[in-house]
Amino acid sequence: MLHAIIMAGGSGTRFWPKSRRHRPKQLLTLTGERSLIQQTFDRIGPLASADCVRIVTGADQVAAIAAQLPEIPSGNLIAEPAPRDTAACVALAAMCVAHDDPEGVMVVMPADHVIRPESAFVRTIEAALKVIDKEPEALVTFGIRPTRPETGYGYIEHAEELDRHGEVPVYRVAQFREKPNRETAEQFLATGRFSWNSGIFVWKASTILAELARHRPSLFEAMQPIRDALGTPRYDEVLKAVFPTLEKVPIDKAVMERSAHVRMLEVLFDWNDVGDWRALADLEPGEEKGNVVQGAVKIADCADSIIVNEDGKLIAALGLEGVVVVVSGGVTLVAKKDKLDSLKALVESLGTSGHGDVL
Amino acid sequence: MLHAIIMAGGSGTRFWPKSRRHRPKQLLTLTGERSLIQQTFDRIGPLASADCVRIVTGADQVAAIAAQLPEIPSGNLIAEPAPRDTAACVALAAMCVAHDDPEGVMVVMPADHVIRPESAFVRTIEAALKVIDKEPEALVTFGIRPTRPETGYGYIEHAEELDRHGEVPVYRVAQFREKPNRETAEQFLATGRFSWNSGIFVWKASTILAELARHRPSLFEAMQPIRDALGTPRYDEVLKAVFPTLEKVPIDKAVMERSAHVRMLEVLFDWNDVGDWRALADLEPGEEKGNVVQGAVKIADCADSIIVNEDGKLIAALGLEGVVVVVSGGVTLVAKKDKLDSLKALVESLGTSGHGDVL
Repeated sequence: MLHAIIMAGGSGTRFWPKSRRHRPKQLLTLTGERSLIQQTFDRIGPLASADCVRIVTGADQVAAIAAQLPEIPSGNLIAEPAPRDTAACVALAAMCVAHDDPEGVMVVMPADHVIRPESAFVRTIEAALKVIDKEPEALVTFGIRPTRPETGYGYIEHAEELDRHGEVPVYRVAQFREKPNRETAEQFLATGRFSWNSGIFVWKASTILAELARHRPSLFEAMQPIRDALGTPRYDEVLKAVFPTLEKVPIDKAVMERSAHVRMLEVLFDWNDVGDWRALADLEPGEEKGNVVQGAVKIADCADSIIVNEDGKLIAALGLEGVVVVVSGGVTLVAKKDKLDSLKALVESLGTSGHGDVL
Repeated sequence: MLHAIIMAGGSGTRFWPKSRRHRPKQLLTLTGERSLIQQTFDRIGPLASADCVRIVTGADQVAAIAAQLPEIPSGNLIAEPAPRDTAACVALAAMCVAHDDPEGVMVVMPADHVIRPESAFVRTIEAALKVIDKEPEALVTFGIRPTRPETGYGYIEHAEELDRHGEVPVYRVAQFREKPNRETAEQFLATGRFSWNSGIFVWKASTILAELARHRPSLFEAMQPIRDALGTPRYDEVLKAVFPTLEKVPIDKAVMERSAHVRMLEVLFDWNDVGDWRALADLEPGEEKGNVVQGAVKIADCADSIIVNEDGKLIAALGLEGVVVVVSGGVTLVAKKDKLDSLKALVESLGTSGHGDVL
């Protein structure tokens, strides 16, 4: 049986002021009519019933997620008492799956990416399930063929092609690489052997737990009290006591970089991690001159700009080039596109400058 | 006795969205704590009592002006049934003054300029009153020494200096010139003989009426029914019937360019016609990097920008250069400074594109 784990741990600065501390990116409807987490849930629908979808998130987001995804049983909303990075998150989810279904296979997906078309996603995951059928110990990761020397993503270098399921090639992995600098990213691109690390995984719950026990025994051991408490009345109490003490480490570093069983599939779908406001230009059909406009907006003589009106009567934009304007919740952001990397710092500074009410 | 005429006929596009159709520039508090028309009233205070201040404006603005200037007798608020340019406006005011005070002297001032310091304004007007004392037939106009080759103003070329009152030189006028192109404006600046036409005048009411009768007899004759009705119960009815039919012509063209009695005084004060949002940069103390900020605003890495928050929770501006951002009445304007000349056209287009509610 396929179990889907949606990792919904994102925070709320990159899409501020539409995203806020208690309304992070995955809960936002940025494109289309469903929020990113709803789109993620919809995407896995052909492969996993709602009963088999679990969402791992912060305690303060459980209510909002339940409201957006009422189909999911409330017991499947796993609240992390504190964020402890992806190794602990994945292991907790794997323990829950293994407790219910010892032979269960799980697909792990971030809640806040856009993937199109859905059918290509389904065919890609089906290929991964065939890999698991043949090699039950496999840890399947998914590589995105890079289209630019992006410095904001991790990369996976593949070694030889081992197999092929339909159109999907299966590679052995040569190495994982963290976010490179520009020069290194250009070299990666030139070799043709590097893919972007999508953060999507398929494996048996028992496999990832065994590999964690082998490659990060300290973390695995530290989590045993939680596993032992699963299904008992002590569970909540134990989770709250133990989870916040766990090591913060990404699953890539804890396991994937060390395991001999990693397989990389090159995906069939288009992928966008929706990093910040600029992503709208890739996701929405831009009008003339590359402007993206949402809501009541009047533009004149603008180019390459993103104008989003959530709740104002009107935004009038005149003569802008490469500017992002967002009005949401009574707050206006106006930012030059090429300075958006500094938005996080600006938003974080609001708390200490008397504007904590708009975080 | 000195009578002050404040011409308050301005419309509401250059400072949109803070200015609106029924809230034109002169009613706005753009700098300091008083609106532009209140500042104009305050400025003439040392020379004319509130009883002697008349305001000529549109019928739809009378109530708002009365609310801002409760000191002025309501009978001194002269409502034009339709805008007919400055010759008709000035003549109507002169008829009202002459009716009450046949020998009255009047100072005519636009309602929406910023003049500093007030004491220099008073000394300049006092110099004009001395000119009238010596030459009762004089039409006194005021020239501003130009500081740049501005193409948005009319110019006055002065001839020889005839007299001097205190620090104020009195010139005969060689010619009036309408808004020049850039090249001509540069030539004007180079000669040292051209001044900006301030639109401020001092003359006896009887003089301007006599000169209008001489140089624009058709307009003068057309207005006689209004003059005859002054102080009678028929006045309102006659004004409404006659005024909208009057020729639209500026007082400069109808009289000043033709009269032999024009004298130009070079003013002692700093003058700003507050043309559009860019004027704030001249009027407000800019902070570091030349930004002007009003209201709840957070800026990072901005230069040469104007950020005005009238009613939003916050405006956050990131990486802007030469941009105007205004949030007022639920409407957001974001405009490149060097494109602000097109704001009027943009605002006017809103009516036909379904946004008439924000005009």
